[in-house]
Amino acid sequence: MKIDAHCIETTIKSNEPELVRLSAKPEGTIVDVNGVKIGGKEIVIMAGPCAVESEVQLSETARSVRAQGASILRGGAFKPRTSPYNFQGLGVEGLEMLERTRKETGMPVVTEVMDTRQVETVARYADMLQIGSRNMQNFPLLKEVGLTSKPILLKRGMMATIDEYLYAAEYLLSQGNSQVVLCERGIRTFESSTRYTLDLNAIPVLKQRTHLPVIVDPSHGTGIRSLVATMAGAAIAAGADGLLTEVHFKPEEALSDGSQSLYPEQFGEMMRNIRKIAEAVSRNIHSL
Amino acid sequence: MKIDAHCIETTIKSNEPELVRLSAKPEGTIVDVNGVKIGGKEIVIMAGPCAVESEVQLSETARSVRAQGASILRGGAFKPRTSPYNFQGLGVEGLEMLERTRKETGMPVVTEVMDTRQVETVARYADMLQIGSRNMQNFPLLKEVGLTSKPILLKRGMMATIDEYLYAAEYLLSQGNSQVVLCERGIRTFESSTRYTLDLNAIPVLKQRTHLPVIVDPSHGTGIRSLVATMAGAAIAAGADGLLTEVHFKPEEALSDGSQSLYPEQFGEMMRNIRKIAEAVSRNIHSL
Amino acid sequence: MKIDAHCIETTIKSNEPELVRLSAKPEGTIVDVNGVKIGGKEIVIMAGPCAVESEVQLSETARSVRAQGASILRGGAFKPRTSPYNFQGLGVEGLEMLERTRKETGMPVVTEVMDTRQVETVARYADMLQIGSRNMQNFPLLKEVGLTSKPILLKRGMMATIDEYLYAAEYLLSQGNSQVVLCERGIRTFESSTRYTLDLNAIPVLKQRTHLPVIVDPSHGTGIRSLVATMAGAAIAAGADGLLTEVHFKPEEALSDGSQSLYPEQFGEMMRNIRKIAEAVSRNIHSL
Amino acid sequence: MKIDAHCIETTIKSNEPELVRLSAKPEGTIVDVNGVKIGGKEIVIMAGPCAVESEVQLSETARSVRAQGASILRGGAFKPRTSPYNFQGLGVEGLEMLERTRKETGMPVVTEVMDTRQVETVARYADMLQIGSRNMQNFPLLKEVGLTSKPILLKRGMMATIDEYLYAAEYLLSQGNSQVVLCERGIRTFESSTRYTLDLNAIPVLKQRTHLPVIVDPSHGTGIRSLVATMAGAAIAAGADGLLTEVHFKPEEALSDGSQSLYPEQFGEMMRNIRKIAEAVSRNIHSL
Repeated sequence: MKIDAHCIETTIKSNEPELVRLSAKPEGTIVDVNGVKIGGKEIVIMAGPCAVESEVQLSETARSVRAQGASILRGGAFKPRTSPYNFQGLGVEGLEMLERTRKETGMPVVTEVMDTRQVETVARYADMLQIGSRNMQNFPLLKEVGLTSKPILLKRGMMATIDEYLYAAEYLLSQGNSQVVLCERGIRTFESSTRYTLDLNAIPVLKQRTHLPVIVDPSHGTGIRSLVATMAGAAIAAGADGLLTEVHFKPEEALSDGSQSLYPEQFGEMMRNIRKIAEAVSRNIHSL
Repeated sequence: MKIDAHCIETTIKSNEPELVRLSAKPEGTIVDVNGVKIGGKEIVIMAGPCAVESEVQLSETARSVRAQGASILRGGAFKPRTSPYNFQGLGVEGLEMLERTRKETGMPVVTEVMDTRQVETVARYADMLQIGSRNMQNFPLLKEVGLTSKPILLKRGMMATIDEYLYAAEYLLSQGNSQVVLCERGIRTFESSTRYTLDLNAIPVLKQRTHLPVIVDPSHGTGIRSLVATMAGAAIAAGADGLLTEVHFKPEEALSDGSQSLYPEQFGEMMRNIRKIAEAVSRNIHSL
Repeated sequence: MKIDAHCIETTIKSNEPELVRLSAKPEGTIVDVNGVKIGGKEIVIMAGPCAVESEVQLSETARSVRAQGASILRGGAFKPRTSPYNFQGLGVEGLEMLERTRKETGMPVVTEVMDTRQVETVARYADMLQIGSRNMQNFPLLKEVGLTSKPILLKRGMMATIDEYLYAAEYLLSQGNSQVVLCERGIRTFESSTRYTLDLNAIPVLKQRTHLPVIVDPSHGTGIRSLVATMAGAAIAAGADGLLTEVHFKPEEALSDGSQSLYPEQFGEMMRNIRKIAEAVSRNIHSL
Repeated sequence: MKIDAHCIETTIKSNEPELVRLSAKPEGTIVDVNGVKIGGKEIVIMAGPCAVESEVQLSETARSVRAQGASILRGGAFKPRTSPYNFQGLGVEGLEMLERTRKETGMPVVTEVMDTRQVETVARYADMLQIGSRNMQNFPLLKEVGLTSKPILLKRGMMATIDEYLYAAEYLLSQGNSQVVLCERGIRTFESSTRYTLDLNAIPVLKQRTHLPVIVDPSHGTGIRSLVATMAGAAIAAGADGLLTEVHFKPEEALSDGSQSLYPEQFGEMMRNIRKIAEAVSRNIHSL
């Protein structure tokens, strides 16, 4: 017997989130990131460094991943870091580098926003606003980002249930913004051989419950470079609409998350792997 | 063999957080909340409703818990809620009610701040700023609150390791504010007979590693009213410097977390229980 | 900082398990189950009911799954059940039904053994001995089964780390039996939208560390029929050498685990799905 | 919404376990271990080494813990060990040492049984049969031990829910043996600062649901010697009917679990701590 401790929450839970549920839009949502469409037959690859570190690092990485099939450039200008003494990101300077690299490569840019006060600024530079795992239940941030007209990448909290995740997305939609992409990125379990436990079950579970596109981040999800290509393929087989992957032109010099960043060649291998699996599930990889 | 995925984090981790560690202040920190001292021999009880709902609810609950031995009044004006359709708190109106009740009862007030933009406002009304579990790694908020001169109650994330928790506190201290109280409030596990798993081990573990006071929230930690008094006693035996408990004059009418809120009489029982255990560990309960 | 509590265990852990590690047999182990080879290029599908319930149930299900591509028949005669009042299996009578169905269909049989005293009996009927999740650290059983000459299917404990899993396999090999197949079947986490969290990361992690074949049980792993085919495909993409799936000719009448058992038609769909994905990863499905 | 995957289990779960539930014996069960009564007003301390290693180790430790207030001697002769290459216990020789030490000290003996084939032998030597955490769902063992006339110490599985734990106890009672003591010993969570997370919430939860006595093992529960005395006190405050603690006369030379074994002097400190807390909850420590 489960002792239910949530008298009020329970009442609400018996009403599923309204706007995000599948029955609200059975045909599925297509999210348009400056021309790149997520949620259709085509699978969209987002790639780039964990953090924007320099013009050359960003530009070289971007050109490399674009050449190999990525459609959207990722890169953090504001970085949530466990320790206050870790590199915190280049801030606005990083946003400007993202803008220049977008112009150079034609790739739309997704970057994280962490603070309600930054939303307007980040929205000026980014094509898609990312809400990170640690902010999945930062409700003021959800409300503020939900008021923008930019597409949103909402990462699953590392300890969030699917229910909580859908409610977090509901916060965004209830503000009027329905251009939302979900992203499984690993949950916290007792297992320590991977950094997190990438929960691919979340993909079909979410697909049964919501019309929003679902992508997967195998880089954070495993935390180990040598597992990324394999788990990327498994994610596509599980029905993912896209991937978010960390690639660095010199991972051993990365200022954050180097050990999970792919070398450009490894990204190429991953792309070859997923192209075949995409075909097996009757899909294909979007290209710019 | 643990495959370590955090090359950079690892380097940092081999250096423990600097400012919060026990050796930085072996005699321990005393946090002064408008005259109520936390971290010394006396155990401090914070009590009140989950959310501020009305003048009468707050005032009646406050007078009741004060009469029975609580020293600090808790009550949320800004509420983090899983669903956007749940009661979100009374906002500034709630802060004003807290201020009036403080004047009426003489109890210092602790209340949550969720948004960097609210810090200044909440700090104007509150004697102590609470950072909630879901915001433990909301780094911009940590930095902003760390810049105030108010004492801070930093709740442990429901998914946070002790390491991450200490780093979050380090964010506050690194901004210049060392008046920080830690609060264990339950972690997320596979066990569903309680809402969370109140992790009392965290108390002696934290005491071995930091000079900051540690209190316990048995209300959120268990989510079940009938377990609160017992676990409150266990927390005191484990070395807690205080408790944060939810009490409502009419729990069955509460707008949030009613099932874990104590009836005023149950709060009285809890107080009798913990007075004896406090004595057994050579401490006593602070009274106003 | 992790406070390491295992002075002795740690010493041992720095020596990885000897016999199971990849370097002990870099070419990989092929396990031969009465002519069906697991661990090579061909992917092997094991299917059948959770529990053997009757001659007709077993026979009809077996013929159906064989016709659709399964090579090994699964079915429990001794069932580990949470409650003593649940159906506990048909015992030796069930073993006899398995034997007759093997003769009828030509499918080798895998079935669970739960008790050291049953090992000899079960080994007389079965082509492969299964050690269930709850017995992964039943060390006397591991030793006894390791002394037989039968191939072994060792399921991962729902709470076992990869390290512990490899040590459990090492128990088998250290007794002289190296015909061991590993099986990921879901781990216990906080997430409740699935019965367990099927941990597909375990496949590439195990492949990097051991020469033993690795299969996946998407039926127990998810606990939900509608997720099985999708997660089966993802498992193949992640590198699984086979699948263990529950199929029942009338799931709604099953005496155990009915809600996760596939209808025969669903099993057919799953087979079509995985054939394509197997091809994408340059493998194929074994057929009898 | 929780997708329930257990159609059959659910039906059973709506019927709580029959024999163990509180309403079946509201006055509570008293378990008599050769004259030492567990479950009444008196708190019973079981102490001794993790494993029986030698005559002198056992005897010296036993005399020390008895002199300081322990009533029952613990010590493993058959040891469940993660690695096959770790010390596996002295077996029958260890049982004989336990018997001689019992005669010498007058302390009843509790020791683990791991194999259905050993039950008769172990029962000949032991006053109380322990079923270890890894065997909580070893159903044949539960049935076999349930058929003996010896009192049973059933440890909670490190990944077992309270529901599953009560069903495991139900297995014992359904065989006719109702002399069962439950023992919380830590559950597996994401937190790594302790070996397991000692779940003291389990005590009041179990007390609300069953008439069986509940004790706590703070040694395995934390895995860290310096936390044991504090968590032992917290366990008593939470309502535990006893403690199971590891003490070794030379922990640094222990063949297993040395880092969590108390030095005899630390055991003395623990006893002084819990005597005061026992008094605070109107109980006292049993003495031989």
